Amino acid sequence: MTAVQNEIERRGSRIFELVDKHPQPLFSKAGLYQRLMALSMRDEQFKVQLFRFVDVLPSLRHPREIIGHLNEYFSDDGFGPFVGTGIRLARIVPWVSGPILRWNVSGMAHQFIAGKNSDDVIKTLRKRRSQKIGFTVDLLGEAVVSEADADEYAARYLDLLEKLARETKNWTDPLGKNSELFPVVNLSVKISALYSQINPADPADAIAHLAPKLRPLLRRAREVGAFINFDMESYAHKNTTLELFKTIFREEEFKNWPHAGIVIQAYLRDSEADLRDLIEWGRKRGTRFAVRLVKGAYWDYETTKSLQNGWDCPVYFQKPESDANFETLTRLLLENESIVTAAFGSHNIRSIAHAQAFADELGLDPSRFEFQLLYGMAGPIKRALVEMGYRVREYCPVGELLPGMAYLVRRLLENTSNEGFLRAKFAENVSAKELLRDPTELIKPAVAGIGDPGGSASADGKNSTSLDIASADVYRNSPLVNFAYKDSQEKMQGALREVRKRFGEKYPLVIGGEKVWTDQLTPSVNPSAPDEIVGYGSEAGIPEAERAVKAAREAFGKWSRTPFEERAHLLERAADIMERRRYELSAVEVFEVGKPWNEADGDIREAIDFCRFYAQQMRRLGRPKLTQRVPGEDSYHHYWPRGVTFVIAPWNFPIAILCGMASAGVVTGNTVIMKPSEQSIVCGAMLMQVFEEAGVPSGVLNFLSGHGSVIGAHLVDHKDVDLIAFTGSREVGLKIWESAGITRPGQRELKRVICEMGGKNAMIVDSDADVGEAVGYSIYSAFGFQGQKCSALSRLILLQDNYDRVMERLIPAAASLRVGNPEEPGIMVGPVIDEAAYRRILDYIEVGKSEATLAYQAKDLPRQGYFIPPTIFTDVKPNMRIAREEIFGPVLSVLKVRDLDEALEVANGSDYALTGDRRIFLAESGQHRARQSPTGSGKRLHQSLVHRRDCRAPSFWRIQNEWQRHQSRW
Amino acid sequence: MTAVQNEIERRGSRIFELVDKHPQPLFSKAGLYQRLMALSMRDEQFKVQLFRFVDVLPSLRHPREIIGHLNEYFSDDGFGPFVGTGIRLARIVPWVSGPILRWNVSGMAHQFIAGKNSDDVIKTLRKRRSQKIGFTVDLLGEAVVSEADADEYAARYLDLLEKLARETKNWTDPLGKNSELFPVVNLSVKISALYSQINPADPADAIAHLAPKLRPLLRRAREVGAFINFDMESYAHKNTTLELFKTIFREEEFKNWPHAGIVIQAYLRDSEADLRDLIEWGRKRGTRFAVRLVKGAYWDYETTKSLQNGWDCPVYFQKPESDANFETLTRLLLENESIVTAAFGSHNIRSIAHAQAFADELGLDPSRFEFQLLYGMAGPIKRALVEMGYRVREYCPVGELLPGMAYLVRRLLENTSNEGFLRAKFAENVSAKELLRDPTELIKPAVAGIGDPGGSASADGKNSTSLDIASADVYRNSPLVNFAYKDSQEKMQGALREVRKRFGEKYPLVIGGEKVWTDQLTPSVNPSAPDEIVGYGSEAGIPEAERAVKAAREAFGKWSRTPFEERAHLLERAADIMERRRYELSAVEVFEVGKPWNEADGDIREAIDFCRFYAQQMRRLGRPKLTQRVPGEDSYHHYWPRGVTFVIAPWNFPIAILCGMASAGVVTGNTVIMKPSEQSIVCGAMLMQVFEEAGVPSGVLNFLSGHGSVIGAHLVDHKDVDLIAFTGSREVGLKIWESAGITRPGQRELKRVICEMGGKNAMIVDSDADVGEAVGYSIYSAFGFQGQKCSALSRLILLQDNYDRVMERLIPAAASLRVGNPEEPGIMVGPVIDEAAYRRILDYIEVGKSEATLAYQAKDLPRQGYFIPPTIFTDVKPNMRIAREEIFGPVLSVLKVRDLDEALEVANGSDYALTGDRRIFLAESGQHRARQSPTGSGKRLHQSLVHRRDCRAPSFWRIQNEWQRHQSRW
Repeated sequence: MTAVQNEIERRGSRIFELVDKHPQPLFSKAGLYQRLMALSMRDEQFKVQLFRFVDVLPSLRHPREIIGHLNEYFSDDGFGPFVGTGIRLARIVPWVSGPILRWNVSGMAHQFIAGKNSDDVIKTLRKRRSQKIGFTVDLLGEAVVSEADADEYAARYLDLLEKLARETKNWTDPLGKNSELFPVVNLSVKISALYSQINPADPADAIAHLAPKLRPLLRRAREVGAFINFDMESYAHKNTTLELFKTIFREEEFKNWPHAGIVIQAYLRDSEADLRDLIEWGRKRGTRFAVRLVKGAYWDYETTKSLQNGWDCPVYFQKPESDANFETLTRLLLENESIVTAAFGSHNIRSIAHAQAFADELGLDPSRFEFQLLYGMAGPIKRALVEMGYRVREYCPVGELLPGMAYLVRRLLENTSNEGFLRAKFAENVSAKELLRDPTELIKPAVAGIGDPGGSASADGKNSTSLDIASADVYRNSPLVNFAYKDSQEKMQGALREVRKRFGEKYPLVIGGEKVWTDQLTPSVNPSAPDEIVGYGSEAGIPEAERAVKAAREAFGKWSRTPFEERAHLLERAADIMERRRYELSAVEVFEVGKPWNEADGDIREAIDFCRFYAQQMRRLGRPKLTQRVPGEDSYHHYWPRGVTFVIAPWNFPIAILCGMASAGVVTGNTVIMKPSEQSIVCGAMLMQVFEEAGVPSGVLNFLSGHGSVIGAHLVDHKDVDLIAFTGSREVGLKIWESAGITRPGQRELKRVICEMGGKNAMIVDSDADVGEAVGYSIYSAFGFQGQKCSALSRLILLQDNYDRVMERLIPAAASLRVGNPEEPGIMVGPVIDEAAYRRILDYIEVGKSEATLAYQAKDLPRQGYFIPPTIFTDVKPNMRIAREEIFGPVLSVLKVRDLDEALEVANGSDYALTGDRRIFLAESGQHRARQSPTGSGKRLHQSLVHRRDCRAPSFWRIQNEWQRHQSRW
Repeated sequence: MTAVQNEIERRGSRIFELVDKHPQPLFSKAGLYQRLMALSMRDEQFKVQLFRFVDVLPSLRHPREIIGHLNEYFSDDGFGPFVGTGIRLARIVPWVSGPILRWNVSGMAHQFIAGKNSDDVIKTLRKRRSQKIGFTVDLLGEAVVSEADADEYAARYLDLLEKLARETKNWTDPLGKNSELFPVVNLSVKISALYSQINPADPADAIAHLAPKLRPLLRRAREVGAFINFDMESYAHKNTTLELFKTIFREEEFKNWPHAGIVIQAYLRDSEADLRDLIEWGRKRGTRFAVRLVKGAYWDYETTKSLQNGWDCPVYFQKPESDANFETLTRLLLENESIVTAAFGSHNIRSIAHAQAFADELGLDPSRFEFQLLYGMAGPIKRALVEMGYRVREYCPVGELLPGMAYLVRRLLENTSNEGFLRAKFAENVSAKELLRDPTELIKPAVAGIGDPGGSASADGKNSTSLDIASADVYRNSPLVNFAYKDSQEKMQGALREVRKRFGEKYPLVIGGEKVWTDQLTPSVNPSAPDEIVGYGSEAGIPEAERAVKAAREAFGKWSRTPFEERAHLLERAADIMERRRYELSAVEVFEVGKPWNEADGDIREAIDFCRFYAQQMRRLGRPKLTQRVPGEDSYHHYWPRGVTFVIAPWNFPIAILCGMASAGVVTGNTVIMKPSEQSIVCGAMLMQVFEEAGVPSGVLNFLSGHGSVIGAHLVDHKDVDLIAFTGSREVGLKIWESAGITRPGQRELKRVICEMGGKNAMIVDSDADVGEAVGYSIYSAFGFQGQKCSALSRLILLQDNYDRVMERLIPAAASLRVGNPEEPGIMVGPVIDEAAYRRILDYIEVGKSEATLAYQAKDLPRQGYFIPPTIFTDVKPNMRIAREEIFGPVLSVLKVRDLDEALEVANGSDYALTGDRRIFLAESGQHRARQSPTGSGKRLHQSLVHRRDCRAPSFWRIQNEWQRHQSRW
């Protein structure tokens, strides 16, 4: 054992001694809370339901709603394991009634909140002052979905600063030493609260918006001698926050101000590099700054998010890894004490003792750094540290009940986490010796599946016993590009430059493996700048269409008998090529159809997934399935290729949908003629290149750009076309369906049509919805990619109970959107596809104005290009045209309804069924209401259909998963 | 131990001593045969392939064919386990070449055949005479498919009798004692060889045909002093054979003739009752007769057949049960020695010793009974028995190589059977003590799955590792009625009487749960006697159709949300009701559509299976299936009901298809309007009754009889009909398909059509086919139920190599068919459905006469009713109308082709695809040719598509399965 470990143990034991001298419960309030925590630690299922209930409670206004939710969350339907334990809510709260329960749970929340406003908090701070404990104050608040929200936040910070400065004017440093390093007033600022449009792909824009909002606060802080700390939240904003910090504090005005701090999260794999970079920056700057070292409070969020998107996980999987890194960073901070002031944010006595011991070894005075702990928790540790003569600061959240509940849930998670220090010490009485062990000794060797949260998602089938989970068939999407990395941003910029150089190139038809040029060329333009021609497509006529059918028919014989394994491989090779050409293909989409970066990347990802998913499915379908067995006879179900497939694709997912339909045809042993949309010929040509490179045999996949009215109609009616796969408008789809019904002379098969037509998607916001989430998703769904998706939100259905609450945040959120040329990063709303669409959508806006109330319309659009202002109509009735017809643009109709039943009726009252609005399902059985959301095979759900916290809704799984894997480490 | 057991052991040991005194290999010929047997006993897989190869060998004419089949049967493709053992054919027959192999295998066959004709056999018999061994001679021959075959057989028996009598004129009894009981000449007659149309449902007909053929043989036998034994084959003919025996030998002419014998098979559960009945009969008759007691040689066939049809298995599952029963019957025989002469047919020394011991106990002279053993086997035992002074007779098959091979396979099976005595004694050297144990001690208690071959079929997935076997999804058909039982015959006769009493009843429509009568009534007549009106259906018009759509639409909301488990239960209740009313429903079909008994029963069985299979499938589909899982999101695949379904059914499977389509609609949560065919309204009304009794909610299933041209067309076009399920003609089907393609005002869903239309089924008889089997299946498929099935054989495609061989047996087989009123049992060809069909089919026969050659047409049809003579055309070319158009009657076109490639081309060259002719699949990979046969879910395959022994064809499974479970016990 090293000398340092000896010293750590000595100091740690001393802290434990002091802690144990004043026995005190883990939480300052006993009763219900203690009981619930104890149950939660014993029963994961109960914990999940309890925390979900706590989360929804603030949204419930009527006692009957509270009771209804209790029944729903704790009923036995769907929670067999929970019931099996014999735990009943009645046993916990036998005196349950709505208001009392609410009051109790609110009490729980207040335990962790230092006050609901600045006046309130002052009382708390005074009390702490008497205990020689300092403070840093944080503002709780709802999600910032608009610039109005952000401005309000900024104003609240300024107000808080003023009040704190005024009230603490005469307070002195508790240690009376090195007090110049530690101003009494200390404000923790959540950067994400100050700008609603932060996009990880565009840090420059974020900084440009954040800096002007921060400067007045910083100036005033300097004036009143306060300290400002930049808090750190999710990884997506980390680089932007660091950049912002380094940028603003090198500005002339703040360059020599020492009272600025930032947070380093030890659970991040790149935290050491970040800290070294910061220290170097600080030395260059020449002025002290501060760092609060924490473990990190978003572990579940980060692991879940990275698994969802297929990203490298930014956090350590094992808790001891974070603990060990915390110590590494502690040493780094203390070694650089000459430029950086350290605050150690942890409740872990080992971590605290380590910092003390190492500081001691360096000969640092204890008054030159501090420990920070959370309000409402770990009181005995704070007291012990004060007794030992250390500097202690309490992190005090201030705010209302609603945002307070979300904070409460984070604290509850922490306190019940399997790996949390407080649980180990105060609930499980783990020995001091064990708790003081060197974390590096506890790190397990990296073994696949151990400590890897990826394993848990599929392994945990607890709540799915009643569902048919064939895990072998489960498909995992390929990763999205993470534009939070500078490297990704640069690659995309590079691809955009490269693709721009190719503007004006010509692309041939491909028939029977040959490139075919025709006299007629169709230009494809950039909708953001219609004078830019992205490329020219060859225009096929009847002779080329005939030639393509012949080629496809000839290739069918051999291809249909090619082993399915070989066909599946072809798709997988195509997927690999698209992976390699990913940025380039995305760039083409940005230019040709005006897709924002991440939407374009999502489209390529979907194309890749179609290939891999269909390959996987083909392996399943390709093997004959035994359906019956009697002696002497086995009956098998086989699938057989149909023949020649004609694929007609739209421009809105120009590579994904074309690829999906074509690759499905090809992998199943059919031969395919694919016609891209006239607006996205270059994307189509790219896909053809991909399949050629992948080695598709001649005639198996043919590329035929041209006019739908000419070659489309001809091929639909063709006697040698056996199957038609179409995605597009209802009008065209119905015509195809009808025409394909006619069996023509010489036709050998009944024609089959796979038809995906229009949508008029609805979202219902129930009365218990999280309004911030609902608004965020609504805005993204309605206006992302200009609403040009079959799955775009077109009808927002609000319960009257909720109407005002939602609308007062929805309009400002829409008004905060960044509209512009999607070639720029971080743009959410670009141009619509072409002039015809532009005129059609403007016409619909006129219709809307005559039918309903124009509640919002954006101004200040780019002057060039087919830009439509995001538009919101209210007072919309179900029979109005804007509520019935597909607009396919950034126009949202808001319908107000009485209750959920009417909401479902309105949602269902549409001619359109795509992405599920016709499929809302309501089953009333006993007191349990379940709504099931539709899913598409191999496709991710674009939006939550009924936005309501519900036992069966997708969000359930998200939440449950986060919670079950939780490892909190403040 | 009892005295008898002591005596058995004493005698048994003595036999073993004598056997071991003259060591001799198990089989008289060593070399290849010994080696193959040894390998077969070690390796089941090898054994199966070897025996299959032996079976096909006689059909192969060219050396290259032999080599080709060797490669196919012993290639590693699909036989991984076999290859894994390291056994290679090359190691066994390194000197392999076609002709040599053929010569060797022929040698193997000849080892078990006493001679290829009567001259040949005499030599063998003389040799045996010198060894004091007697004989009984049996004729080997191909399957009897026609009366020509049967007459030839009868002539051969007579000829054999004459020759044997002449050649053995001066032979004397080897024991010289009680010789009057044992004539020297002993002929074993296979009863099934004497009449090609034996139908278990109609023993009277069989006896009426068999007796006249037997009498000349019996007379002659009596004249020459010979003995005639009725051999016993499969259980289906057992009762008929017993009845025949008892009938003919009580005729005045044969009443006092003692030299008649019959076989009792101890493996049959009812053998004791049969034997007691025979003895009683014998006592009444007053003349001695003989019984050969055997264990039974068709164990695999009987267990397989009963499992296939869901019948109670007639044989004991455990070998010791048969052995014990053999002893019971031995005692019964010997106790009744005063009236019955016993012959014990067994190679089992325990069985032999038991008979000896028991006879001894009774004080019977050894010369008053005999032991019979097979030619070419168990020589040492025969010698031992002769030495001990017992009477020994050898069972000597006489015949050609082709039928000899089938006999060889039976013997090979026996010699390699796990449970055979010879294998135990001679190959495995089991101790005498063990072999002499009392079989009753060896019987295991009946435990589910133990000894029950039903368990094995699904448990054994050995060769299916590469296939996707989801055993949970595998469906087992419900049992067919076994008309071999008198009880079943009587129930059917009773049901026919009862249904006849109801002739002329009126049946209402059923709409929204109400019985609806209309003014117009449609009579439904008996096509066998068109003046008989089976019943009257109410005729629906447009108002009733509208009412039905309304009722179905109203019921949809609730039914679509009814839990699938409840919907599945409804179908299962309907199935139970049909099970209960089974004979009655069959009888209605016999009268209303002219179905033969077993076809009518098969239709009800299929209806029952549709209900149960769909219930099972619904439970599978009803549970959402997880298709994707990422943290925060699970994607499920759900199935949703579509809406109102219109079911249009044909008359040819009047209950099965109507029930199948309607029940599929109902169980999936749709509501259904079912329209039966105008020719089978009463059947439809019966089905409606069944569902009403099962408790189908009002409006969920509606019954609408009427004219297709009126209500059919109206409902197909109806905007509120979402789904159409149709089975019928191509003409009507294409019209529906086309009309349903049009989306009409107010229509909410694209109309879906499930359309099953015409067929023009082909069968290819490859050059290596078993001609007897091919002819039998062809005749059944082409003429069963008058060819009125989509799956009926319409085009028989013969390779020129095989053409003459097939045709020379096909025409006589057709000429032997029983055409008549299917109210009578045993009729295979009845009337066609109505006068329109009658005229249409006759017109086609005229077309055939003008296009091709009329090769056969039946005469002597019933004068009343719509009877069409079974007709065969030859010289048919693929482009002729009779080769292209669906005739739907008992008309068969025969096409001659050069080779298999042309055969496949011709088979595929049809507009029709139903039941698979369009789906013949030929994959050439290396030297392995695999053809896969199509199957229908939940439906049994009606016929083998490519009639060829093939590694992957259905027959493979049948054969393999029989063999793997084989327990032979001669």
